[in-house]
Amino acid sequence: MIDILISDPTLRDGNHAVSHQLSAKQVAIYCEAANKAKVPIVEVGHGNGLGASSLQVGIALESDKVLLETARKNLSNSKLGIHVIPGFATIKRDLQLAIDIGVDVIRVASHCSEADITQRHISYAREKGKEVYGVLMMSHMVSATLLVEEAKKMELYGAEGIIIMDSAGAYLPNSVTEKISALTSSLNIPVGFHAHNNLGLAIANSITALEAGATILDGTARGFGAGAGNAQLEVLVAVLNKLGYNTNIDFYKILDASEIAELEIMQNIPVIKSESIVSGLAGVFSGFSKQVKRLAKEFNVDQRDIYFALGEKKVVAGQEDIIIEVVMEILKKDKHE
Amino acid sequence: MIDILISDPTLRDGNHAVSHQLSAKQVAIYCEAANKAKVPIVEVGHGNGLGASSLQVGIALESDKVLLETARKNLSNSKLGIHVIPGFATIKRDLQLAIDIGVDVIRVASHCSEADITQRHISYAREKGKEVYGVLMMSHMVSATLLVEEAKKMELYGAEGIIIMDSAGAYLPNSVTEKISALTSSLNIPVGFHAHNNLGLAIANSITALEAGATILDGTARGFGAGAGNAQLEVLVAVLNKLGYNTNIDFYKILDASEIAELEIMQNIPVIKSESIVSGLAGVFSGFSKQVKRLAKEFNVDQRDIYFALGEKKVVAGQEDIIIEVVMEILKKDKHE
Repeated sequence: MIDILISDPTLRDGNHAVSHQLSAKQVAIYCEAANKAKVPIVEVGHGNGLGASSLQVGIALESDKVLLETARKNLSNSKLGIHVIPGFATIKRDLQLAIDIGVDVIRVASHCSEADITQRHISYAREKGKEVYGVLMMSHMVSATLLVEEAKKMELYGAEGIIIMDSAGAYLPNSVTEKISALTSSLNIPVGFHAHNNLGLAIANSITALEAGATILDGTARGFGAGAGNAQLEVLVAVLNKLGYNTNIDFYKILDASEIAELEIMQNIPVIKSESIVSGLAGVFSGFSKQVKRLAKEFNVDQRDIYFALGEKKVVAGQEDIIIEVVMEILKKDKHE
Repeated sequence: MIDILISDPTLRDGNHAVSHQLSAKQVAIYCEAANKAKVPIVEVGHGNGLGASSLQVGIALESDKVLLETARKNLSNSKLGIHVIPGFATIKRDLQLAIDIGVDVIRVASHCSEADITQRHISYAREKGKEVYGVLMMSHMVSATLLVEEAKKMELYGAEGIIIMDSAGAYLPNSVTEKISALTSSLNIPVGFHAHNNLGLAIANSITALEAGATILDGTARGFGAGAGNAQLEVLVAVLNKLGYNTNIDFYKILDASEIAELEIMQNIPVIKSESIVSGLAGVFSGFSKQVKRLAKEFNVDQRDIYFALGEKKVVAGQEDIIIEVVMEILKKDKHE
């Protein structure tokens, strides 16, 4: 029986779904439930991770300090994890604070082609004796060869495992197999997959990742997370049990935890709406949603055309200026047709 | 490019989700939208199909006559389909009525081991010159060998294609491959798959069916259907397009249709709750839900234990008496522990 390490970012990726308004009370309630179910790692924080609360990506209701201290108090079976994007999270101010509060697992993340920026954070966290993973976001955007190169950098910096994220929910199973196989055959550390459900394939892609050699998976209660949501944790546990993998999670208690999450922390259970399907197909990060909607309305352009044009340009978070450019191009094209 | 025939039971399987209360107006609105998207077949009726409106399985808001006449008026690109279970649907009263109204596609369904009961209905519909399919429900319950035997009977009766249903949402992809491969290699007619999403695998299982040789798939707007819902049609079309299959469905217009369905006909978009996961794992039909809930509460027994015990007994629709038996066994066992 193969052991699979499950990390649960309900209280981090799910924070995206409520504009980072999860309260300390909600964090306490879900941590208690996940801890009872013996979820190995519970990840907590602002949707964009440690130190990210800002006007630019959204002010969180609670400070990192409050979120992490609350989680720390309520986790004993489960390890406390954080998501750390250098640029948002500084070492001195943010990482040190999290270490002082007693975080167990530190995942240092970058865009899939920018592993370089993770070196100092990974090294620092390792020096402090923490369990450290490297995370490559928007991993569908680069080839398997490039992904392996970036992952190898993180391994060299000291990462004890690499997780690739399907941040846009763009993967089909065959691409999961290609990327994960390339990583598992090139690295000496465990490999993981973080799915999104834009194309209804979060559970299937997660299984496919395991079949290709991954041993780490992310999942959230009821799929609570950005856009169309994540791999639904309690479904994932059910399917992994049925397939004969070992997660060490108590099945009835994770079902209970998902019900508590639905009642206590979620405004809506994620469903797959048209916009998620289109952004997933186009491979565009869901964070562009508000601006795409606004500009589509303002200029009377089909927002689906905007997403596909953005996908062709391979835009990434931070390149929001390109949206207006794309809208102008569509208008020009419509005029000529 | 392989052509895939899509049948859309939003207005039939979805009727389960609203206790068969879809109105003529709602049928008209969705038919118009699906017709614009050029969905090949739109299936309409009571959740349990033609002639099923009854105290036992639920009285429909509208008669079959009204449902079918309304759909007929609003479908020109799309064919009008019906689901016919002998026992509910008689030939003289029900099937003849549907034929008189001008139904195009007749799917005659039975439990996976009871194809015998479909002979007269299939033959009659063929004699009347209709496009006729055989449907095997709860198909996870029998071996591939038995399933092939039953499907061959339907082929012999005159069915022009066989659809197997994952009525309990119990399939994992490897079982889909096994069953569909066995059918496609043994039959001379097309094979199809009707998925449910209890284990989050409706889209994945549908793709897997195609890879094993199926060429017919069912999907519904937003997954609208019994329990955890069906394969989400607009997601299915997106994924099939991306994989290079041809559905002949207009992608933007099926996205529009799904939004219209969400606004006009659905009370809730299906999500995967604990009960669906457990009934899917146990392989038990979701129609038992109300009685399981009631008895679990009355006798203070965990309803999850009831589902797993029912699964072990391989109960099928109509065997509701066994639920109380199972509850008594659990109580007896608890007492001795």
